[in-house]
Amino acid sequence: MINFTVGPVQSPDYVCEIGGEQVPYFRTDEFSQIVFESERIMKSFVNATDDSKVVFLTGSGTAAMEATVINTLTPDDKAIVVNGGSFGQRFVDLCKWHSIPYDELKLEAGYGITSDQLAQYSGKGYTTFLVNMHETSTGVLYDMEMISKFCKEEGLFLIVDGISSFLADFVDMQKFGIGVFLTGSQKALACAPGVSVVVLSTKALDRVSKTKSCSMYLDFSDALKNAERGQTPFTPAVGVIRQIHKRLKTIEEAGGVSSEMNRMHELAVDFRKRIEESGLPFELFSKSPSNAVTSLYSPQISAYEVFLRLKDEYGIWVCPNGGAFKDIVFRVGHIGSLTIEDNKLLVKSMVDLINKMEK
Amino acid sequence: MINFTVGPVQSPDYVCEIGGEQVPYFRTDEFSQIVFESERIMKSFVNATDDSKVVFLTGSGTAAMEATVINTLTPDDKAIVVNGGSFGQRFVDLCKWHSIPYDELKLEAGYGITSDQLAQYSGKGYTTFLVNMHETSTGVLYDMEMISKFCKEEGLFLIVDGISSFLADFVDMQKFGIGVFLTGSQKALACAPGVSVVVLSTKALDRVSKTKSCSMYLDFSDALKNAERGQTPFTPAVGVIRQIHKRLKTIEEAGGVSSEMNRMHELAVDFRKRIEESGLPFELFSKSPSNAVTSLYSPQISAYEVFLRLKDEYGIWVCPNGGAFKDIVFRVGHIGSLTIEDNKLLVKSMVDLINKMEK
Repeated sequence: MINFTVGPVQSPDYVCEIGGEQVPYFRTDEFSQIVFESERIMKSFVNATDDSKVVFLTGSGTAAMEATVINTLTPDDKAIVVNGGSFGQRFVDLCKWHSIPYDELKLEAGYGITSDQLAQYSGKGYTTFLVNMHETSTGVLYDMEMISKFCKEEGLFLIVDGISSFLADFVDMQKFGIGVFLTGSQKALACAPGVSVVVLSTKALDRVSKTKSCSMYLDFSDALKNAERGQTPFTPAVGVIRQIHKRLKTIEEAGGVSSEMNRMHELAVDFRKRIEESGLPFELFSKSPSNAVTSLYSPQISAYEVFLRLKDEYGIWVCPNGGAFKDIVFRVGHIGSLTIEDNKLLVKSMVDLINKMEK
Repeated sequence: MINFTVGPVQSPDYVCEIGGEQVPYFRTDEFSQIVFESERIMKSFVNATDDSKVVFLTGSGTAAMEATVINTLTPDDKAIVVNGGSFGQRFVDLCKWHSIPYDELKLEAGYGITSDQLAQYSGKGYTTFLVNMHETSTGVLYDMEMISKFCKEEGLFLIVDGISSFLADFVDMQKFGIGVFLTGSQKALACAPGVSVVVLSTKALDRVSKTKSCSMYLDFSDALKNAERGQTPFTPAVGVIRQIHKRLKTIEEAGGVSSEMNRMHELAVDFRKRIEESGLPFELFSKSPSNAVTSLYSPQISAYEVFLRLKDEYGIWVCPNGGAFKDIVFRVGHIGSLTIEDNKLLVKSMVDLINKMEK
């Protein structure tokens, strides 16, 4: 199978190799060194300040989203939540669940945020801003420069879900004034799913120290105390953390984030060009595409059937959408170990499939 | 390295192989079938009723412990918590954290529960009983027959952390009247850490339906709804779930739980006999040992130094203890892919090390 989904994605061989090894015992200095080094590289890759801290959480990206909400926000906050799809909706659900007052900046699917939209929230007593910098469900990358400027002017604490942005699109915690940045192991990190990573700025650390988390498992205070010795409070997904470590080190040695980002950018641009030239009955759905994924609008044929038949007849996974988009949108990821050759094969297979379907 | 810790433990080759494979996309019928089959075998291995349900949670065992507390208990409950070590303490901490009224049945480390101790809690309005059937930190296996009888007589809802008991010691949800049974991927299941498994009886399901979980990530209602189609609400540790599935199927084909339990029992008995015969300055610490682990009391030489030097000089991990026991107790696990030959090598290495240390 070739995997063009948005997670789990295809891992490089050196990541799979670690997955195939025995998982070592972890309450050791050796494992602590792995955690420390991973923390150091994570911070450098998102340009966090030296006194920022990193938490490795065994759980899905949603665990990190919820942990961030319950460890840094309280009912005294007033949040703006960007809701452009299922992951924006998840932040909305989390604020609701935890009684964090919020208003939704609801977007039309496929569209980014405009400055006029933001302006409506100016000077109204908000304290925090939550955004999935890339709304993975529709492939929309938001304008972080604009969001960052707005948050600075308004003095808002900025929480960024970068689950599918880390390594794929430009992130700079200091430049953007990001308070919390979070990501997952199974997106552009291209490791097995099971670990999410949270980078906490000093502003975030200050909030954590004053907030009582409602979950013990998701408590950052305990995690941070353990992180001082390169450990976690509970048994982590040791194997995945070892994969993340190796992956971060390899990217660092190969020239850092920009080389990885450029590689994905080339794949994305190549794929979009091929789609346009192919005459396939698909249109680019996102008005503000990321490097991580291309969302395709399929008005004539069932997008879900395309997903199913590519899987069953061609050995290719693309990423289906759910809900109202199930039959009209699907996604093609550019994260993980993919090549231009894979793009060619996918487009060729799609052309073949569409010919069959139209017969 | 040979791994005699209590988790992560050594995996069989067929489990490692899956770890080395690309992680497949999971919103598919193929993955749902894996989840369904794993659920079926889990239920049969703990003898749960047909209408019980299984939740696969991406997280440590503590995530499952907390999820159980917040999805099945409320401040209207009154709990008895068996506290015989760090994992009993964890249930205490969780009850405290979530304002579940509780009393502790605090035990001397290394000792099981007596019927006299239990009797003191009779007829006092308790509603629920929480126990780590095997207190992993000290290697004490509690008398589940006695606990079960007490809970039935008192009408208590019985929550059993069987993280290090599943497959190692006898479990029977129907016979013992267990409400919730939970375990983790990295103990006797011998898979990579990252997934915990919760089996919910109909009594538990009834409690879940009436309880509002304080965490969205750890919410059983949502997990159960998704489980109907063999899925999870959020991206799970797909690779680990595939390992669990393969492991469960292999054990089933090899004769089921009893063959696996017997294998561990033989390893445990063999190791304890060797320790006694070796003249090593270690005594069996647990008065009620499990098949999963042997805890050793080391009054003369630092237990932590034994752990460190076995690791650094012999390529062997045993399991250190923390806190007050750091220098006087360490543990040797019998779970995972270990053999009598491994036991021989461990004892031989210990003898050699002690000779060096006594020089």
